[in-house]
Amino acid sequence: MKSIYEVALEKHAEWKGKLTVELKTPLESKEDLSIAYTPGVAQPCLEIAKNKDDAFKYTWKGNIVAVVSDGTAVLGLGDIGPEAALPVMEGKAVLFKRFGGVNAIPIVLDTKDPDEIINIVKKMAPTFGGINLEDISAPRCVQIERKLIEELDIPVFHDDQHGTAIVVTAGLINALKIVKKKPEEITAVVSGAGAAGSSIIKMLKAFGVANIYAFNSKGVIHRDDMEKYNFVVQEIAMMTNNDNKKLTLAEAMAESDLFIGVSAPKIITKEMVASMKKDAIVFAMANPEPEIGYHDAKEAGARVVGTGRSDFPNQVNNVLAFPGLFRGALDVRSRKITDEMKMAAAEGIAALIAEADITEEYVIPSPFDPRVAEAVAKAVSEKAIEQGLARL
Amino acid sequence: MKSIYEVALEKHAEWKGKLTVELKTPLESKEDLSIAYTPGVAQPCLEIAKNKDDAFKYTWKGNIVAVVSDGTAVLGLGDIGPEAALPVMEGKAVLFKRFGGVNAIPIVLDTKDPDEIINIVKKMAPTFGGINLEDISAPRCVQIERKLIEELDIPVFHDDQHGTAIVVTAGLINALKIVKKKPEEITAVVSGAGAAGSSIIKMLKAFGVANIYAFNSKGVIHRDDMEKYNFVVQEIAMMTNNDNKKLTLAEAMAESDLFIGVSAPKIITKEMVASMKKDAIVFAMANPEPEIGYHDAKEAGARVVGTGRSDFPNQVNNVLAFPGLFRGALDVRSRKITDEMKMAAAEGIAALIAEADITEEYVIPSPFDPRVAEAVAKAVSEKAIEQGLARL
Repeated sequence: MKSIYEVALEKHAEWKGKLTVELKTPLESKEDLSIAYTPGVAQPCLEIAKNKDDAFKYTWKGNIVAVVSDGTAVLGLGDIGPEAALPVMEGKAVLFKRFGGVNAIPIVLDTKDPDEIINIVKKMAPTFGGINLEDISAPRCVQIERKLIEELDIPVFHDDQHGTAIVVTAGLINALKIVKKKPEEITAVVSGAGAAGSSIIKMLKAFGVANIYAFNSKGVIHRDDMEKYNFVVQEIAMMTNNDNKKLTLAEAMAESDLFIGVSAPKIITKEMVASMKKDAIVFAMANPEPEIGYHDAKEAGARVVGTGRSDFPNQVNNVLAFPGLFRGALDVRSRKITDEMKMAAAEGIAALIAEADITEEYVIPSPFDPRVAEAVAKAVSEKAIEQGLARL
Repeated sequence: MKSIYEVALEKHAEWKGKLTVELKTPLESKEDLSIAYTPGVAQPCLEIAKNKDDAFKYTWKGNIVAVVSDGTAVLGLGDIGPEAALPVMEGKAVLFKRFGGVNAIPIVLDTKDPDEIINIVKKMAPTFGGINLEDISAPRCVQIERKLIEELDIPVFHDDQHGTAIVVTAGLINALKIVKKKPEEITAVVSGAGAAGSSIIKMLKAFGVANIYAFNSKGVIHRDDMEKYNFVVQEIAMMTNNDNKKLTLAEAMAESDLFIGVSAPKIITKEMVASMKKDAIVFAMANPEPEIGYHDAKEAGARVVGTGRSDFPNQVNNVLAFPGLFRGALDVRSRKITDEMKMAAAEGIAALIAEADITEEYVIPSPFDPRVAEAVAKAVSEKAIEQGLARL
């Protein structure tokens, strides 16, 4: 039997691109031409020249997102360059359309200089209604995203940072209902202090989690080594480890109610999970091999377990978040995607499972649940309006 | 009755974009997801990482063109900015797809600095199989196009320069058969020394036209005022006006067999056309009002007349050239679009009208003639192979 990799290669060669650009307007006569193109097209041009925001009214700006990557952190493959990143960016664009009805196109850039990436995206921003940054290595991705959010008046969102954070927060909201704990009562271990880890930590703090022990490959993050950290890890140090303890991973696990992994395969043992507080929650999302397997974590006593894998319950899949998030932001022509809008997205995902239906195996809806994108879009667009960011 | 401008505005508001991105692959199951996206997508990524040209094999790179503009010379509207240029760029993308089966997307840039435009296009070039520059003001457009052709290994083409040149050359090839003259025997007046005019002059010279008088708004171009000219006009001066004469437009017309106008409405009188050599050919393409009207030129004695308008015979419409030109270049993954490929396109368009069918009213095929793009593509791809530019 052919492996998934062989099938994927064959299919990609057959498709020669997973996307196609199609016309929304017929073009069968001279008159059609004179409406869609010259001379008629001059009229929408003149209207937009008077008021830039009319681009949302007369062009696809309101429903087109650029999926921008420099190819430096593609999947688990690392820095493979812009051309080699294209199949992933096309795939991302496919997900945008399939799940959120959002038109998206890949833009891969042949530069790794953060300032140059920022400048290029700024200069081409009039083309788009939103910018999805993708597979850009940390900490550059954080720097690039922050600067672009500051300088542009269209949503800029780096999915590798926030996608997992939103979905895991959704899962946590429902898991806490099972174990009957409040965020303010729990301690968490977050393993991984890169793009995703830092966003997860920020979101857990916004959600109210009392204390977090953050780990990178060198151990627990604390505030006695600040000069050795990059700016992202420095920020994590300021938000975590309330008592600035020098714990091992095993020691931190024994103090915690929640484990969240966005790091490396098999670094968590059954013993560590068994040592956690009663009714522990484990989201182990290293890919393709989690920090601890689903069954191992369950056997060790974890009450709720989620992974990044589709073959176990509670799959933490970014596709639950970003299509609806952009759908909602675009629907109200939002100028930003804020932290509050991300939290609204998490709450929207969580709320799709009625309290009576929540089980240990069902704290996160399926990626193919057709209600997801719409629910997220609604929550996000309402929040944008509330925050005064909608262009309406 | 509503004007074409009112209808166009209404339709654009209804469409909210003339383009849509669609999926070529179903995405209905976990397995579909794992082939089009993770984990399967890693395989084409790895292949491309080994060999960049495999991007043509596994992604839409081989059939996606960027329509790039800075909005500085949009239609007859001038410098209206990137947002206001979007409806035209979308329209251009629509034409690419409708007539050439070429996927195209607008990219409008918020900068007018030629070096910055060159750099941005270079950096995003891995995304695309070709670059169509559009509505960038002269002489910057010439500088930008040349540098990009030099530095990139995908076709770069500025339609405002070469589109009209190709189609008018096609018309001229057939018109000369009617009047039984050879290019080496004729003298031409070209009115307009901007982007289109300079390309037309270059192409007429390559075609063999004996002598050309080029005019800009200040009069005939000669070689005694070189320091006053920009580099484009300087090049024109070197290729035209064999005897460096200081003629008025009327005087030049009286010496000429051919008039080509890409300048301003109504600058040519019936008297001027009447004074031309026997069996004169007139292509008056100022838009929407030509240098001299179709009927006036005919009444004054011109044998073959063409304009840019669809309501008269022999419409010189760029859409006859660029879709097939890119189709042909993309089909063989050409590294360039050369002058020889442009000439092949002109010959391909001309040859669609059998010698027996050529009449004074039919030297250029209709934009809706379904054979055009294919014939152009064939001529262009064969020339690319012949020139060793195909990636095959």
